[in-house]
Amino acid sequence: MTVRIPVEELQRFVTTVFTRAGLPEEDAAISAEILVAADVRGFDSHGVARLDYYVGRLEAGAINVRPTIRAVAETAATVVFNADNAIRFVSGYRAMRRCIEKTKESGICLATVRRSNHYGIAGYYATMALEEPGMIGVSMTNATPLVVPPFARDAFLSTAPIAFAIPAGKERPLVFDGATSTVAWGKIEIARRTRQPIPLGWALDAEGKPTTDPFAARYLTPLGAFPELRSHKGYALALLVEVLCGQLAGGVWAKYVGGSRSQTIGPSGTGHAFMAIRIDVFRPLEEFLADMDDMLGELRRARPAEGAERVLVPGDLEYETEQERRANGIPVHPEVLEKLRDIAERYAVPFPA
Amino acid sequence: MTVRIPVEELQRFVTTVFTRAGLPEEDAAISAEILVAADVRGFDSHGVARLDYYVGRLEAGAINVRPTIRAVAETAATVVFNADNAIRFVSGYRAMRRCIEKTKESGICLATVRRSNHYGIAGYYATMALEEPGMIGVSMTNATPLVVPPFARDAFLSTAPIAFAIPAGKERPLVFDGATSTVAWGKIEIARRTRQPIPLGWALDAEGKPTTDPFAARYLTPLGAFPELRSHKGYALALLVEVLCGQLAGGVWAKYVGGSRSQTIGPSGTGHAFMAIRIDVFRPLEEFLADMDDMLGELRRARPAEGAERVLVPGDLEYETEQERRANGIPVHPEVLEKLRDIAERYAVPFPA
Repeated sequence: MTVRIPVEELQRFVTTVFTRAGLPEEDAAISAEILVAADVRGFDSHGVARLDYYVGRLEAGAINVRPTIRAVAETAATVVFNADNAIRFVSGYRAMRRCIEKTKESGICLATVRRSNHYGIAGYYATMALEEPGMIGVSMTNATPLVVPPFARDAFLSTAPIAFAIPAGKERPLVFDGATSTVAWGKIEIARRTRQPIPLGWALDAEGKPTTDPFAARYLTPLGAFPELRSHKGYALALLVEVLCGQLAGGVWAKYVGGSRSQTIGPSGTGHAFMAIRIDVFRPLEEFLADMDDMLGELRRARPAEGAERVLVPGDLEYETEQERRANGIPVHPEVLEKLRDIAERYAVPFPA
Repeated sequence: MTVRIPVEELQRFVTTVFTRAGLPEEDAAISAEILVAADVRGFDSHGVARLDYYVGRLEAGAINVRPTIRAVAETAATVVFNADNAIRFVSGYRAMRRCIEKTKESGICLATVRRSNHYGIAGYYATMALEEPGMIGVSMTNATPLVVPPFARDAFLSTAPIAFAIPAGKERPLVFDGATSTVAWGKIEIARRTRQPIPLGWALDAEGKPTTDPFAARYLTPLGAFPELRSHKGYALALLVEVLCGQLAGGVWAKYVGGSRSQTIGPSGTGHAFMAIRIDVFRPLEEFLADMDDMLGELRRARPAEGAERVLVPGDLEYETEQERRANGIPVHPEVLEKLRDIAERYAVPFPA
């Protein structure tokens, strides 16, 4: 049976584990907040299900727990950070924080980060912009190679997610967080846990053929899934993310990103890109918010297709999941629970369930 | 039989037609250059096949031929233009030109444009950045509603294309220009001209059902094509384009964009967004170009999948088409040729074929 754990208790547990694994108090709290945010929003694949991975890398000394995250090149509206092999949550958080501060002054900022680490949800950093009045946030990252370009045999690209958050007035904001591959690898992991077949087009097997068996899945397809459904577009978007997070940050591109889930040693060299935009340098904020309300309202109240229940705006399901889970706790799959209990025991941290 | 017309002759013809239809000399030349660039690069759907549409709108007085394109809000790294109902080629060209100039100073610039008109290829404006040393260009536009959100019954969004151009050193640049829908409407038009069925997933019929008949096609799907292949991602990307080109520009979003191909009167209110990034504010340009060469070279020389010939980088096919067409002329489909000859006769302009 799936156990439910209250959000705050889960965060407290993860914070303590991260502290015992070597992170300073503040960094442990930031990391726990962002890791558990994945579970809160319903990205079960990217939350505490991966705590063992982070702990493993911390234990192996693969992550620098006392990094000096520094700006190595900076103008009024741009900045490049060297994350000094920090845990990704902390480098991402600090880079987006600075990106937001710079945007308050300059109206826009593009921040890139090299020598970071990976996983966690891209969306968290984008939604940080929503805490400011009238700001749009964008977040991207590269990761280890998993995605096969159209007509290629091997994986060269990462799932290269793009997240963005755009405020509205009375309507809930527009928030998207998704891989530029058809699905993120976590969706394959979930299908394995639930023993469900996957739709044809999500993944390729070891021979590079499309498969519906999650256990045979080894590579992912770019968004579009098949060349005739225009998977070259997902491929192109992945390359854009790759260039902003890799080459423009002075780091490496997916093929040379290390530290995949099967590797616990060595720095991964992941790169990120963040952007923030101050709306009122373009037009009065109130007008923008009213126009967003009109669009989002029309979409949310649009006539559904035959057999469909309703039309969603990106972020709606995550918002509803968040409300429900904050009220009732995070459902933790038995396999994940077992891993968490094991970590609790090893670190002698009381486990909340 | 398909006739071939040399690029320069076709440009000269279009320039003269635009001049006779009321555009000032310089604006006619810019418009002809960008319109024919679509044919040169192989976007046959967006080139002279649509000359009758532009001429029709000019004849109907739907486009302002003496616009005052002015910046209505500006900071060092941002600018908003009111295009004053100019023909899109000219508003796009001038906005991207200014965006590039500002980027030379500030390292990055985001320019939005409202009250413009539509069609033409987004890629042209993005590739303008490649004429500068070490600059990345991005271009987006909205247009009339054609794309149905997942689970919806009606078209709310435009094909909302995103184009970007990223320079390399010895390798050819990375250039992408594509709709965030599975395909652009022009692909349906081409299938109609060639009497070919279309792949399931590209389009929906009048009842909102997927169809393979290009003549029954009425709406388009977001990239991803089907909900289970994650068409909510194409939908989200279309919304991002929509917000940057619509709400952030102070214009309208797709549902309220007018001037579709069946309407020749009234302003369309289309919006655009352009971005440019100066690479050397992030890192030394030579290093960036060398890293791009490594990635693009590895992709272009990657092992192909079984049955495939080679792996492409976005922009490769368009580059090869351009080389071939500059050498041998633009192939013009008989139906298009007929329309062009008709225009030539009406405007008493000698037609090159």
